[in-house]
Amino acid sequence: MKKGDEKLIEILDQRFLPHKRVVKTLSSSTDCERAIRDMEVRGAPLIGVTAAFGMYFAVLEALESQNFETELQEKSAFLKSSRPTAVNLMWAVDIQNSFIQDHKLDDDLPEKVFTQAKKLMEQDVDVCRRLGEHGLNLIKALSEKKKGAPVNILTHCNAGSLAVVEWGTATSPIYQAHLSGIPVHVWVDETRPRNQGAHLTAWEMSEAQVPHTLIVDNAGGHLMQHGEVDLVLVGCDRVTREGDAANKIGTYLKALSAKDNEVPFYVCLPSSTIDWEVRNGLKEIEIEERGSNEVQYVQGLLRDEVEQVRICPEKTPALNIGFDVTPARLITGFITENGICNASEEGLSHLFPEQAQIVAK
Amino acid sequence: MKKGDEKLIEILDQRFLPHKRVVKTLSSSTDCERAIRDMEVRGAPLIGVTAAFGMYFAVLEALESQNFETELQEKSAFLKSSRPTAVNLMWAVDIQNSFIQDHKLDDDLPEKVFTQAKKLMEQDVDVCRRLGEHGLNLIKALSEKKKGAPVNILTHCNAGSLAVVEWGTATSPIYQAHLSGIPVHVWVDETRPRNQGAHLTAWEMSEAQVPHTLIVDNAGGHLMQHGEVDLVLVGCDRVTREGDAANKIGTYLKALSAKDNEVPFYVCLPSSTIDWEVRNGLKEIEIEERGSNEVQYVQGLLRDEVEQVRICPEKTPALNIGFDVTPARLITGFITENGICNASEEGLSHLFPEQAQIVAK
Repeated sequence: MKKGDEKLIEILDQRFLPHKRVVKTLSSSTDCERAIRDMEVRGAPLIGVTAAFGMYFAVLEALESQNFETELQEKSAFLKSSRPTAVNLMWAVDIQNSFIQDHKLDDDLPEKVFTQAKKLMEQDVDVCRRLGEHGLNLIKALSEKKKGAPVNILTHCNAGSLAVVEWGTATSPIYQAHLSGIPVHVWVDETRPRNQGAHLTAWEMSEAQVPHTLIVDNAGGHLMQHGEVDLVLVGCDRVTREGDAANKIGTYLKALSAKDNEVPFYVCLPSSTIDWEVRNGLKEIEIEERGSNEVQYVQGLLRDEVEQVRICPEKTPALNIGFDVTPARLITGFITENGICNASEEGLSHLFPEQAQIVAK
Repeated sequence: MKKGDEKLIEILDQRFLPHKRVVKTLSSSTDCERAIRDMEVRGAPLIGVTAAFGMYFAVLEALESQNFETELQEKSAFLKSSRPTAVNLMWAVDIQNSFIQDHKLDDDLPEKVFTQAKKLMEQDVDVCRRLGEHGLNLIKALSEKKKGAPVNILTHCNAGSLAVVEWGTATSPIYQAHLSGIPVHVWVDETRPRNQGAHLTAWEMSEAQVPHTLIVDNAGGHLMQHGEVDLVLVGCDRVTREGDAANKIGTYLKALSAKDNEVPFYVCLPSSTIDWEVRNGLKEIEIEERGSNEVQYVQGLLRDEVEQVRICPEKTPALNIGFDVTPARLITGFITENGICNASEEGLSHLFPEQAQIVAK
C-alpha cells in the first residue's frame, strides 16, 4: 500500500443556489463529511457519491496514520454519521470498505478506490437514465389519455440532477418526457424548511426550460381536489423491504392527498436506496432532526446578497424534522432502474431478486 | 339623515408583526376595504368587524353624495369584494345594510351604525368566549386521559385574538385551558405563504405564555404518525350547511393526516361563519387567489428591519391559492358558541335551528 498522487473533488455548493454559483474543493474525508452534513451536497444519490470519494480521502489519511484499519474504520463511521436517514450513504461507504478489503495489499490502492468512486458515480447516472425511461412510459400513457394536453406532475423537494449527478431520480422521467416532446408542467413544492423546491427544482426546471409553477407546500391538496395534478413523482432517502418510503418531510401529506383524490403517487429510486434489512419504516428508520434555525429563518436574495430573515419572534422555539415516512399502502408504485413495481416486498423482490436475499433484521 | 361627528378607527397593522407594532387609522370605507384586501387586518371575524365599521364610513360618504342609496350599494359591493372567501365579511355588510334600511330616516344614522358595529364587535368577543368554554371541555377530557401530561394541540394559520378581537376562535379553548391551569402545548404551523402561524400565532402564544413550538407546514403529518398530536384545532373562513369548511390553504392536508392517525380534528367557528346558502364546499365556495409575490418572497427580520427575501430564481412563476376546503367527512366536529356538533347539516341545524331556516341555493 502506498500513497498515490492526491486528487481533489470539486462540488457545487448548493446552499447558495439559485442565487450564487459557489464551487468548493474537497480534499479530505472531513471536508466530505462536512459537505454532506451541512448540505453543501444533498440528495440521497449525491450523498452516496460524495461519501464514496470521502472514502478515497479516508484511505489516504489512513495510510499516513499509525494503524490503517482502525483509522479507516473511524473515518467510515464518521462519514456515515453525517446524515442518518439516507441509506445510500451507508451503502456507498460499505461498498468502498469491502472494495478496500479486497485490494488493500495493492500498491495503487488509493487510485483504485478513486476509480471505484468514479464508477459508482457513473453507475448512478446510468441508473437514473434507466429509471427515467420506465417513468417516461407512465407519462406517455397519461399524455395520451389527456389527448396531448400537458401532464401536470407534482414534485416535492429536489430529486433532480442536483441530487444525483445527471437526470435526477424524480426528475428523470420529466426530463425524458420533455426531451421527447411530450408536454408536461411541473408543480414545484417549495419544500420548507430548506426550500429545495424553490431554490433548486425551480432553478433546474428553468435551466431545462420545462414549464413549471412554484407553489407552497400547503397547496398540493387543493390542486389535487380540483384535478390539477395528474401524477406525483418524488424521490426518497430510504425504502424498506416492505415498501415504506422515507423522504423529505411533507411527502406523507402529499401521499395522503393523492390517495384521497385517486392521483397516482410514484416514488423514484435507484435500488441502492432500498434498505433490505428493515421492514417497518415508521418504527425502524431513523429520522434526522436538524437545527431549529432552519425553521426560524428563511434564506433568500435581498439587494443581490443571500440573506436569512427571521420569520418568528426572537425566542420562539422550533422543531426541525428532516423526513417523514410514507407507508407502502399510500404508494402507487416504485420507479426503479429495473422497472416499475408495487410498493411491497413482493414487488421489490421481483425486480431485485439478488438483493432481496439480504435478510431483514 | 344628517352627518354626525366623524369617528376614526384604529387598527394594529398585522403585516409587520411580530417584528414591528404599527398602528394605523382608518377614516373612510376605502381605508377599510384596503385594510382588509392588503391583510392589514385578517381573520374571518376581524374582517367582519372591520367591514361593519367600513359601513359606518360608507354611510357618511353616501350622505355627502348625490344619491344615498346608489352610493351605499356601491360601497357595500366594494367592501364585499375585498376578500371573496370569508363569509363573515358578507354577513357583516348585510347586517349593517339591513340596519341602515330600518334607520335611514333617523337624524343620528351614522352614530347608530357606528354603535351597531361596536355591538357586532362585542358580540364577537362574547361568541369566542363561549365557543372557548365548549372547546375547553374537550381539552379537559384529553388532559384527564393523559393523566395531566400536556395536551398537544396543533393549529394552522392564526385563528387567535389577532383574528378576532379577543380570545380568538381556535385559540379560545387553548387560552381557557391555559388559564384554568390545564397543561397544554401548541404546535404552531408556520402557514406559508404569509406565515401567519410564525408571525402571529407564535407571537400570541408567547405573549400569553402558552408553551408552543413552531413547525413547518410539512411536519404535522409526521408528528401525528408518532402520537405527538392529541388534538387539531383550526378556525375557518366559511362553512357550508353540510359541514364542509374553507380555511387557510393546507388545512385539508392536516385533516387527512388527522383522519389517518385517528387524531380528533375540530373546526372552531362563530355561527356567522356558516354560509347556509351553500351545500358543497368544493364546488360552491369561491377560493381567493392572491399575488404570486407572496409565494416568491418571504418576509422577516434582518438587522432590525422588516425585509422580504426572494426564495426562487427571478423569473419563476408561482401560484398563490389562499384557502382550501376540508370536506365534512374529515372533520370530527365543530366548536361553536352554542356547543359542539358533528360536521353535518343535522349537527349545525340542531345548534342553530333559526339560522337553518335560510334556504340553500
